Amino acid sequence: MNIGVVGAGSIGLLLSARLAQRSHHIVCYVQREDQKRELNQWGIHLLPEKVRLPVQAKRTEQMTDHDLVIVSVKQPQIHPVIDVIKQTLSPDTPLLFLQNGMSHLEQVQRLKQPIWIGVVEHGAIRLNDHTVRHTGLGVIRAGTLRKQDQHSMKNRLNMLNDDRFPFVYEEDWERMVKQKLAVNAVINPLTALFRVKNGDIMLNSHIKKLGKHLCYEACDVLGLDRDTMWEMVVRIARATSKNESSMLTDIEKGHETEIDSISGYLLKSHELDLPYTRFVYHAVKAIELKNQEEDDT
Amino acid sequence: MNIGVVGAGSIGLLLSARLAQRSHHIVCYVQREDQKRELNQWGIHLLPEKVRLPVQAKRTEQMTDHDLVIVSVKQPQIHPVIDVIKQTLSPDTPLLFLQNGMSHLEQVQRLKQPIWIGVVEHGAIRLNDHTVRHTGLGVIRAGTLRKQDQHSMKNRLNMLNDDRFPFVYEEDWERMVKQKLAVNAVINPLTALFRVKNGDIMLNSHIKKLGKHLCYEACDVLGLDRDTMWEMVVRIARATSKNESSMLTDIEKGHETEIDSISGYLLKSHELDLPYTRFVYHAVKAIELKNQEEDDT
Repeated sequence: MNIGVVGAGSIGLLLSARLAQRSHHIVCYVQREDQKRELNQWGIHLLPEKVRLPVQAKRTEQMTDHDLVIVSVKQPQIHPVIDVIKQTLSPDTPLLFLQNGMSHLEQVQRLKQPIWIGVVEHGAIRLNDHTVRHTGLGVIRAGTLRKQDQHSMKNRLNMLNDDRFPFVYEEDWERMVKQKLAVNAVINPLTALFRVKNGDIMLNSHIKKLGKHLCYEACDVLGLDRDTMWEMVVRIARATSKNESSMLTDIEKGHETEIDSISGYLLKSHELDLPYTRFVYHAVKAIELKNQEEDDT
Repeated sequence: MNIGVVGAGSIGLLLSARLAQRSHHIVCYVQREDQKRELNQWGIHLLPEKVRLPVQAKRTEQMTDHDLVIVSVKQPQIHPVIDVIKQTLSPDTPLLFLQNGMSHLEQVQRLKQPIWIGVVEHGAIRLNDHTVRHTGLGVIRAGTLRKQDQHSMKNRLNMLNDDRFPFVYEEDWERMVKQKLAVNAVINPLTALFRVKNGDIMLNSHIKKLGKHLCYEACDVLGLDRDTMWEMVVRIARATSKNESSMLTDIEKGHETEIDSISGYLLKSHELDLPYTRFVYHAVKAIELKNQEEDDT
């Protein structure tokens, strides 16, 4: 297939490399001129295999139609991408959105294209503008926003699917996105606040207690079952025990985190008070602010 | 006066040195044989003045009567000290207790001696077993547990009082202790969790928000006025802006903190849920546990 991948962070690079490996033709859409140049010159350097995958890179504004366009930018960067999509893409081009959180869904629903909503369960670290390390093998789950797109989606998903990089069809994408949000609302802020790897939040009994409170609050907002969800959080934290969460990585690099689209989204979408969620929201914001001020001085 | 000072941490050393400077005769009661030896050999080295004040040092078990015995050990160490007092001191020896928190008050009330309850508003850092730096000039406020001891207490307080190291009589000691507890319940865990100095919690808008929640919860438990108390917390954090809280110091040194007698006390003494207090309680406990495990490995 001819695939456009918007955003070349860890997930964008991983996807582009893995799909290029399977002989799909990939165009990476990026923000910065220097990343575009690097990708066109070197391709993507994929670890641990140490292979180079040739890709074509363009600026996001230069977007054109493809058999599929995958949007892998983070929540805070999604606004301008949607504007470009509206201006440039035909209404037939299917779009796969791979963001954490749910705050982009309202905007996305207004697009005319066939919309796929997916979550990524891989671990990946971007080492530089053209190098990515695949740290944890997982799957990408996706479903369609509108029933009528299901058939054509399943066909294309089959063309993407591969044993070493599986794509899985998900009937109830809304539930899937909510579950992923609940997991992120526990693991991300706690690992960032205590500067620990995912597995450590289950080994430290006090962090684990806080995690349970956070999980229950997220379940109450999202209408998920508390016990089922807590079991899932424990399982995922253990399965990715040696991984660093994206929020911890962002905090360590002094980048803006996705706390607004995770804990912030839960706080906005609910009338009840969510004290534990509010605590981690302000705590992560406090660390962001502190990092920023230290940069300024 | 002939004064016994139990505990030679930062406050015990500061008190002993400042009172020795005023020609009171001081006996320091300590736990460890090596600290006893050092104090007997070198006296107390007081900074920033760089003076040495001779004191006599003994082990806590060797306690004898004095005109006043000041107990300046931390909450977790107070149990054995009270046992020694019961076994060795005459019922006439006045005792001044200078702990953070309130969990010791029940035990203390059962003692037969005249009981003074005080709070320390000085800043001090212990640099080694016989060296202390006086970092912030404050006052020591004290009142008597029982009305009938007031007269004799005021007399002795006058003998201790000095412009450069003031002792102030406090009618409503219970309110004073509660206010100090509320201040500690805000400043101590937040400075420890975010690893910042006292003043920083008022400069970072997100930490400040968490501080207000913590303050209000403490007020609700202790029956204090929310607005008055929040003003006091802001004032004290600013007045001690460059100071490191004792809890941050403990965390940085890998020592056990007083979180159980501060946030833990509030949680135990109340039926309502106190989510923000519970969060910082588990967060500080989590860091203690993490430090401990890092020591073990």
